[in-house]
Amino acid sequence: MDITSIGGIALGLAALMIGIVLEGGNLGMYVGESALVIIFGGTIGATAASFPMSVMMTVPRLMVIAFTNQTYDIPMVIKQLVSFSERARREGILCLESELVNIKDEFLKYGLQLVIDGTDPELVRDTLQTKIAFTGERHKLGAAVFKTAGGYAPTIGIIGTVLGLINVLSNLSDPSNLGEAIALAFICTLYGVGSANLVWIPIGTKLEMKHKDEQIIKEIMLEGVLCLQSGDNPRIVEQKLKAFLSKGFAATINTGVK
Amino acid sequence: MDITSIGGIALGLAALMIGIVLEGGNLGMYVGESALVIIFGGTIGATAASFPMSVMMTVPRLMVIAFTNQTYDIPMVIKQLVSFSERARREGILCLESELVNIKDEFLKYGLQLVIDGTDPELVRDTLQTKIAFTGERHKLGAAVFKTAGGYAPTIGIIGTVLGLINVLSNLSDPSNLGEAIALAFICTLYGVGSANLVWIPIGTKLEMKHKDEQIIKEIMLEGVLCLQSGDNPRIVEQKLKAFLSKGFAATINTGVK
Amino acid sequence: MDITSIGGIALGLAALMIGIVLEGGNLGMYVGESALVIIFGGTIGATAASFPMSVMMTVPRLMVIAFTNQTYDIPMVIKQLVSFSERARREGILCLESELVNIKDEFLKYGLQLVIDGTDPELVRDTLQTKIAFTGERHKLGAAVFKTAGGYAPTIGIIGTVLGLINVLSNLSDPSNLGEAIALAFICTLYGVGSANLVWIPIGTKLEMKHKDEQIIKEIMLEGVLCLQSGDNPRIVEQKLKAFLSKGFAATINTGVK
Amino acid sequence: MDITSIGGIALGLAALMIGIVLEGGNLGMYVGESALVIIFGGTIGATAASFPMSVMMTVPRLMVIAFTNQTYDIPMVIKQLVSFSERARREGILCLESELVNIKDEFLKYGLQLVIDGTDPELVRDTLQTKIAFTGERHKLGAAVFKTAGGYAPTIGIIGTVLGLINVLSNLSDPSNLGEAIALAFICTLYGVGSANLVWIPIGTKLEMKHKDEQIIKEIMLEGVLCLQSGDNPRIVEQKLKAFLSKGFAATINTGVK
Amino acid sequence: MDITSIGGIALGLAALMIGIVLEGGNLGMYVGESALVIIFGGTIGATAASFPMSVMMTVPRLMVIAFTNQTYDIPMVIKQLVSFSERARREGILCLESELVNIKDEFLKYGLQLVIDGTDPELVRDTLQTKIAFTGERHKLGAAVFKTAGGYAPTIGIIGTVLGLINVLSNLSDPSNLGEAIALAFICTLYGVGSANLVWIPIGTKLEMKHKDEQIIKEIMLEGVLCLQSGDNPRIVEQKLKAFLSKGFAATINTGVK
Repeated sequence: MDITSIGGIALGLAALMIGIVLEGGNLGMYVGESALVIIFGGTIGATAASFPMSVMMTVPRLMVIAFTNQTYDIPMVIKQLVSFSERARREGILCLESELVNIKDEFLKYGLQLVIDGTDPELVRDTLQTKIAFTGERHKLGAAVFKTAGGYAPTIGIIGTVLGLINVLSNLSDPSNLGEAIALAFICTLYGVGSANLVWIPIGTKLEMKHKDEQIIKEIMLEGVLCLQSGDNPRIVEQKLKAFLSKGFAATINTGVK
Repeated sequence: MDITSIGGIALGLAALMIGIVLEGGNLGMYVGESALVIIFGGTIGATAASFPMSVMMTVPRLMVIAFTNQTYDIPMVIKQLVSFSERARREGILCLESELVNIKDEFLKYGLQLVIDGTDPELVRDTLQTKIAFTGERHKLGAAVFKTAGGYAPTIGIIGTVLGLINVLSNLSDPSNLGEAIALAFICTLYGVGSANLVWIPIGTKLEMKHKDEQIIKEIMLEGVLCLQSGDNPRIVEQKLKAFLSKGFAATINTGVK
Repeated sequence: MDITSIGGIALGLAALMIGIVLEGGNLGMYVGESALVIIFGGTIGATAASFPMSVMMTVPRLMVIAFTNQTYDIPMVIKQLVSFSERARREGILCLESELVNIKDEFLKYGLQLVIDGTDPELVRDTLQTKIAFTGERHKLGAAVFKTAGGYAPTIGIIGTVLGLINVLSNLSDPSNLGEAIALAFICTLYGVGSANLVWIPIGTKLEMKHKDEQIIKEIMLEGVLCLQSGDNPRIVEQKLKAFLSKGFAATINTGVK
Repeated sequence: MDITSIGGIALGLAALMIGIVLEGGNLGMYVGESALVIIFGGTIGATAASFPMSVMMTVPRLMVIAFTNQTYDIPMVIKQLVSFSERARREGILCLESELVNIKDEFLKYGLQLVIDGTDPELVRDTLQTKIAFTGERHKLGAAVFKTAGGYAPTIGIIGTVLGLINVLSNLSDPSNLGEAIALAFICTLYGVGSANLVWIPIGTKLEMKHKDEQIIKEIMLEGVLCLQSGDNPRIVEQKLKAFLSKGFAATINTGVK
Repeated sequence: MDITSIGGIALGLAALMIGIVLEGGNLGMYVGESALVIIFGGTIGATAASFPMSVMMTVPRLMVIAFTNQTYDIPMVIKQLVSFSERARREGILCLESELVNIKDEFLKYGLQLVIDGTDPELVRDTLQTKIAFTGERHKLGAAVFKTAGGYAPTIGIIGTVLGLINVLSNLSDPSNLGEAIALAFICTLYGVGSANLVWIPIGTKLEMKHKDEQIIKEIMLEGVLCLQSGDNPRIVEQKLKAFLSKGFAATINTGVK
């Protein structure tokens, strides 16, 4: 569970509700089924029309990613790569074949397999970099879906409010519930701006952040795999990999290499 | 037929209509011929003034592209390139001449023709990359037409509404149908914001997405053609080409090479 | 005459006027001399303050460029370059001196002169690329003047409207022509948003488009001149130059080279 | 204490307060607890949902950085590097080991340690550049948190105002305190736009500026360390390092090297 | 005196004033001391909080630069460089030492000094490019201060207007001068949007333009100094340097070299 995703959205909604109550309003007043239909139908429609089916199908999986925790255990990856480089120097690179089954990360596994197969170093670098670049493209696309929805939602909200106001203005002959009708129209603006700022845009930004984290770990792995292949001294391997980290964080990692 | 393009726009419009009915409005109230003239005339005029004739002439073809399905059969392309590389290694590169008639994609055909003609590898890469880059420029221009229209539409909508309000304000002496006249003025805002968010911007975004898909397949073809020419081992060809794909997707492709 | 520039702006204005008439307004109502002074004085003032005198002096020439047609006859340029490369291979590069008088394009003429003078190929490339880059900088600056004006106009419009509203609000004691006074204030918004979206921004975008067209033709010329100098086979010259074009367009060019 | 951070925000708030008093308002009127809850709860919630926990945890430290003064003593760093290069040329690079304890900056210390350890120059450059690049990524992330909050705050303000207006419109039957209720609703807009423009965005911009300053000093250190290692003449070292500075500033630095 | 800076701002202000008079308003009505305090205090406060003290201190000097004329006499610089290259070829590079005292531009002087000192060409290029790059960074920062102020001003204007409206709404019991009070509130919007569009943004844009002009002249100087050092033929030097200019402008320069 990603605490800030859930907690942040909950905090935002709670703040709005407490604000309403403090102002003496009642929450039921802010529920409008027509506004719900307009905002969510309109936002989803405009977003679906903007992206191909194949991308829209990944949305549920993207939401799971946004709301769950994928912590990359960077210290463990660095320790692992340093210990591999020690073993590879002592026993030769082929001995790493037995380690492959213990590696969970597909990217690292794939890179090590290439090295064990004796692939040319240039090709290893090219293949892994192409993988990082194209995975990045796909992830940016995922974040773009939510950011795009966050761009459509407020304008759909305005459309809904204008729809409502036109309705009100065309029936001015009945002024008894004028205020309430205008209030109803503004609920669309509320839902549009609210869903954009408390749901769509935060999820899109969060996905971008998770993508950056993943990219750093993959670049560490790429660097590590290439060091392994070129038979670098484990101390140098450690130094190279720790350069990706902040000073404080790097200091917490003890690979045991001297 | 591109389901998300059609379905997304339909869903968006349906949501607005259901919203209107739920609020007790009637759909006829939202039809304004003057607003139609102002919004579509104004948007098309401003967009036409922004782009050269030659680009504007491609708009109908671009709309067909946005609303139809161009699935690139990436697995088939990879299989084909791998099988070509096997045949080229066995029988020499000239034997591929007989395959040319079966290739539908013009870009791949062109690249293979260059290789069969014995063009210098550097020139093959340069020519194909120039082709990818300039095709990309043209595609971005196409998407830009719709995005530009999506930028003009809401402001033309505001112009229309201000036009209407000025009309109303100048005739305040007749307050009987004041509400209706203001409502009419706001229909311009509705059409402007609505057409931008449910038609122009989604089509522009969709064209950008389709362009990205096409670029990936062309980069795979370029890589494949260059591998062919340099006589790479089919297994390496497969590995290089699969690096462009997501892990799950790459696993579904079986070229039969060992 | 550039039909889309003139026609687009005319279509936009016509749409607004037809819209006014359809709503039963009268066109005279939308003429406000104070609004004209505020919007055009304000926009021109802010834009002039943003750019140096030397750039502002090019504005009339830029407007001529935006409204006239500079079609680059790409097929003719390619044919010419291919025929030059044929002649240069047969008779030596110096024979091209006699062709120089027939070339209208200054850039191509300059490039050929460099080659005939026996300038070092690296220097030819550097000099021509510097020319393309700095011409590009100047053209972007020209488009930026109009885009900047298009950014100032709507806000100057808002300033004008607020000016008018303050005037109205300070004289509420005379409510007889209140509506008309407010209407007058809104004419500023109309002129500001209208001039930006139907004149300034379209002209700026059009200039950017024309710049891109010119850049492509210059890159074709640069490539062609370098091919000429290195004595490339005319067929290869043709192939290299056609790579800049779309498939359909390239097919329409027949240089007669075999 | 960073005077412009504290002073700027104080000046902005003071200007608003003096403005209120000059207009005959009273400050107590602008305090709204519901608005406080909505704006700060909503902004913090949306921002927290956008960033991972690990980034949110750095916010207090970032605020300390924004409000305190980290002056980089560039002249001292340049003098130090030049004197190191003199000593290294005379006594060999290992003699710098004794200087390490006097160096406070962790980045410079790390770079010198690498050089003293006899690390390959390419690896020194790579490692230090990776450090600069990834530190830059982390700093941009920090500034992005505040800029993002500054983007959410005004829209949360609009949400709060719409919430309040809906409340007012639904209770039009009680018009006695209508004005006051609407005023209360607008306090949300005030807090949202105000907090964004006087707190969040200035802090974000300030952090970006501090990051740029830090990057320049680190590039000077990187250049200096590499000069040291390659045994450059101290006069050349000084020349290279001063090229990073403005003319006037460079003239104030006297390293004593001839 | 930079005529377009002064004249543009004057023209903009004059247009607004003529507009007011044409609408029958009186200029005194638009003077509000509280609005002045809010807008200028708020804008300066927010901007100061965004930039470090050292950057804020350069603001007065930047305003002088924006409002005065720094014409770069490009033809003279090119003539000078060409004549230097002639003399250097005839009499050797050291003879240029006597010319140094006549050079006013610090950048050119510095470059020539490097060449006369016999600095390695690579180091000359590196040092001068670092100088251009970091001067560019400082200039962009200067322009950014004004652009940032231009971004804050309109929102501070809105804050001021909302402040005023809240004041009005809380005192609805006294409707006699309601209109005037609302008018006063809108003066803040006027000052905010007006100062941004007629002062801050134009000055920021103008500084960017002046920076671009300066960068071109410095790149010409860099190129010229390197030509000098490598002993290029004066005719080639002239050709290389003129490639930076527009065709028409280049034709006006006669260096007398044959």
